[in-house]
Amino acid sequence: MTGPTAPSPEHINALTERAGPRALVEGPDREAHLTEWRGRWRGETPLILAPGSTEAVGAVLAYAYENGIAIVPQGGNTGLVGGQVPNGEVLVSTKRLRKVREVSPEGGTLTAEAGVTLAEVQAAAEEAGRLFPLSIGSEGTANVGGILSTNAGGVSVLRYGNARDLTLGIEAVLPDGRIWHGLNALRKNNTGYDLKQLFIGGEGTLGLITAAVLRLHPAPRERVTAFLSVPSAEAAVELLALTQERSGGQVTSFELMNGATVDLVLEHFSDLHRPVGEASPAYVLTELTAGTEGTLRAVAEGLLEEAFERGLVTDGTIAETLAQAEGLWAIRHNASEAMKNDPTYCVKCDVSVPVARVPAFLEEADASVEALVPGARVIAFGHMGDGNIHYDVLGPEGADDAAWRQRASEIERRVHDVVVAHEGSISAEHGIGQLKRDELAERKSPVEIALMRAVKQAFDPKGLMNPGKLLSPEA
Amino acid sequence: MTGPTAPSPEHINALTERAGPRALVEGPDREAHLTEWRGRWRGETPLILAPGSTEAVGAVLAYAYENGIAIVPQGGNTGLVGGQVPNGEVLVSTKRLRKVREVSPEGGTLTAEAGVTLAEVQAAAEEAGRLFPLSIGSEGTANVGGILSTNAGGVSVLRYGNARDLTLGIEAVLPDGRIWHGLNALRKNNTGYDLKQLFIGGEGTLGLITAAVLRLHPAPRERVTAFLSVPSAEAAVELLALTQERSGGQVTSFELMNGATVDLVLEHFSDLHRPVGEASPAYVLTELTAGTEGTLRAVAEGLLEEAFERGLVTDGTIAETLAQAEGLWAIRHNASEAMKNDPTYCVKCDVSVPVARVPAFLEEADASVEALVPGARVIAFGHMGDGNIHYDVLGPEGADDAAWRQRASEIERRVHDVVVAHEGSISAEHGIGQLKRDELAERKSPVEIALMRAVKQAFDPKGLMNPGKLLSPEA
Repeated sequence: MTGPTAPSPEHINALTERAGPRALVEGPDREAHLTEWRGRWRGETPLILAPGSTEAVGAVLAYAYENGIAIVPQGGNTGLVGGQVPNGEVLVSTKRLRKVREVSPEGGTLTAEAGVTLAEVQAAAEEAGRLFPLSIGSEGTANVGGILSTNAGGVSVLRYGNARDLTLGIEAVLPDGRIWHGLNALRKNNTGYDLKQLFIGGEGTLGLITAAVLRLHPAPRERVTAFLSVPSAEAAVELLALTQERSGGQVTSFELMNGATVDLVLEHFSDLHRPVGEASPAYVLTELTAGTEGTLRAVAEGLLEEAFERGLVTDGTIAETLAQAEGLWAIRHNASEAMKNDPTYCVKCDVSVPVARVPAFLEEADASVEALVPGARVIAFGHMGDGNIHYDVLGPEGADDAAWRQRASEIERRVHDVVVAHEGSISAEHGIGQLKRDELAERKSPVEIALMRAVKQAFDPKGLMNPGKLLSPEA
Repeated sequence: MTGPTAPSPEHINALTERAGPRALVEGPDREAHLTEWRGRWRGETPLILAPGSTEAVGAVLAYAYENGIAIVPQGGNTGLVGGQVPNGEVLVSTKRLRKVREVSPEGGTLTAEAGVTLAEVQAAAEEAGRLFPLSIGSEGTANVGGILSTNAGGVSVLRYGNARDLTLGIEAVLPDGRIWHGLNALRKNNTGYDLKQLFIGGEGTLGLITAAVLRLHPAPRERVTAFLSVPSAEAAVELLALTQERSGGQVTSFELMNGATVDLVLEHFSDLHRPVGEASPAYVLTELTAGTEGTLRAVAEGLLEEAFERGLVTDGTIAETLAQAEGLWAIRHNASEAMKNDPTYCVKCDVSVPVARVPAFLEEADASVEALVPGARVIAFGHMGDGNIHYDVLGPEGADDAAWRQRASEIERRVHDVVVAHEGSISAEHGIGQLKRDELAERKSPVEIALMRAVKQAFDPKGLMNPGKLLSPEA
């Protein structure tokens, strides 16, 4: 594998021509593609192209391949691990692949091009009387190509799975410019290796996804949202099992927040108030949905009573109206925003462990962090139903931010050590990108890294697609 | 890629030794491994080994790899496409990998070794108060390794997905004997290419699955089973949409049978009777399940009334007892058996099309078959909710079986032509094996075949794992 070539002015002209009219992104429009939203990375590129068709993407990649020029694909630029940030490579944006090609409510499918945003997919599904359940904070900007390439998760994974589970087929341009027409709309198709699974979560290192057939679900008819005080994470685990049991698997979301998370949100958002009487060590926000009307509220009330009796819940409220439900969700949704307002940098760990191990993980991680930096504030919240915790750490009150930032990678490593001891994942939903690449190589077994390299070599023998992301360039 | 070496007596001794005590399958025990259950293929092998541990499988494969000896992995030997049948290669059976390693009802996971049967997995899940929903006719014999390697489907795919959707992690021995410990029990883990997806449905061509972490679901609390006469396949498609809509996605099974299917079953099984008054052009057997009790029956009765009014259903019955439900299912489950009793050979096409296209597919395929062999009897039934039809064809009444068998591949091709015209799959759930290998190479795009070959080359550069299955040996 030889390294990529820096594109010459002739290359740049040729690539721009192949990308078709209006594909060149120039001047101030470049900024949105190079600024990472939290300011952690700053992209650099000699050329940004936004081709308007799959064929144009194919023409660009074919030329780049022939000439050994590296490419970074970019979706909505909302990624959290630097996967979409170019380091001198040519940037190919999917933002002009904008068509919803087909919606089939009977077939339960929606075919969209890579540049359609997640919010637009949700809206198109709703208009057809169906549900596209994937939901993440950045859904107004994140697009189909990006959510598939990163296998996005979010608040409904417990019930509906992540992007992988919601994808039936894809169309992708391979590193050498060939187009793979894999827009399968079938529920069942056992005809060889399921290649789309490599592109999903492949972070653009094997090719560029240009369109996908997404799977729609029937829209739910009844929804119950509850905000509950729980005495401990152990109680939350038991509560989850009880809720699944009593509702027969109708739990769509089950979010845990430690006490510090809710306190921080309430401190920064004065229009929000604590939905329960007193402060608690931990809270659960859960949502049940059902396909038929009229049973869920009684189920929820019954199980809440049982949970009170068993000491799993100490206080709680069930939303009476949609507005109330939104108010409860606002506390959870504003957690990340609240941390941005804090004077110290937020060390973000996006981890998962088997659900039953969440309490032990939290206890041990908290102790590790406190031992390392006494007074550091752990803001732990997330999708407990999937074992996925956003374990974020702010500096101690009044800490010097510059000094605190110095400790970031040390804290990450300690938290990840605890995760690995509990057979967990150091990236539950955000992916690897450049941020966790080297750590991944250390944490995964040599056998698995070797298999990943073999796949990369098979699909991209010249190493031109999103080089340096996910895997380091040389073996 | 050089061809495999035939094992010498020294090789056979060395392999047997590496497989460990009691691994050699000898004498009359060999028969069960070499007879394909319908008698379509007859396996040949110099050596059958059933190692008792993952490490022993690794030792066998490592030796075989070093010495260029080809291996055919075999599960319960219930496959329908000859994928498990050796043509002179060494056979490695998973039948002694028998441990259920862990059941975690809280975590919703079950870890089983490859030789545990599907029925045993279902029973272990039930004992833990959970559901493992995968269900196929051969579940008493088919094992975990086989159902994963073929991505098995069955009657609950509509609600719960196929084997792929029910697998969280796998342990596999690679072609060179290395063990990949990928027994991930996490719901979310975005750390690179999802390699397990290649082994699932890979038909043993990339390695040998030795264990898996399977996903359990909450057990349903209410179940409604209905057997309905429908005037046409079009009506069945509308009925499916209505049923999904009114039940809010609680349809677990939705099986279509054409009139000839039910007639044939009733002819061969005198203890079964037609659950509806008169013969109908088509029937639907559907099952709804819910996590909570008390709503489903009312939903079913309401939608049945609506379906009658709209002319989508002309007659029908809802089971009052479990025994009645089993009686309704018996008609569906005995379809294959009834065909085995017919004096003519059954040409089996396991195909899928997008759900909305099922009626057009059936109409055109019926016309094609009739044009080719007037009087041929089409027995069409299957998982209409997934667009998966088992389109089987018996010879005309009184036909000479030998002459009829001559037409089998011609009939298959015609049916597949119609499938492809409707953007369907020539193997919905049975896989490719040796039966459909050459046709697959013709029907898939060259790009996809090239990608599949690249994956095969990356994982199995010597071409020793299940050679000649799925892909032809040379490029």
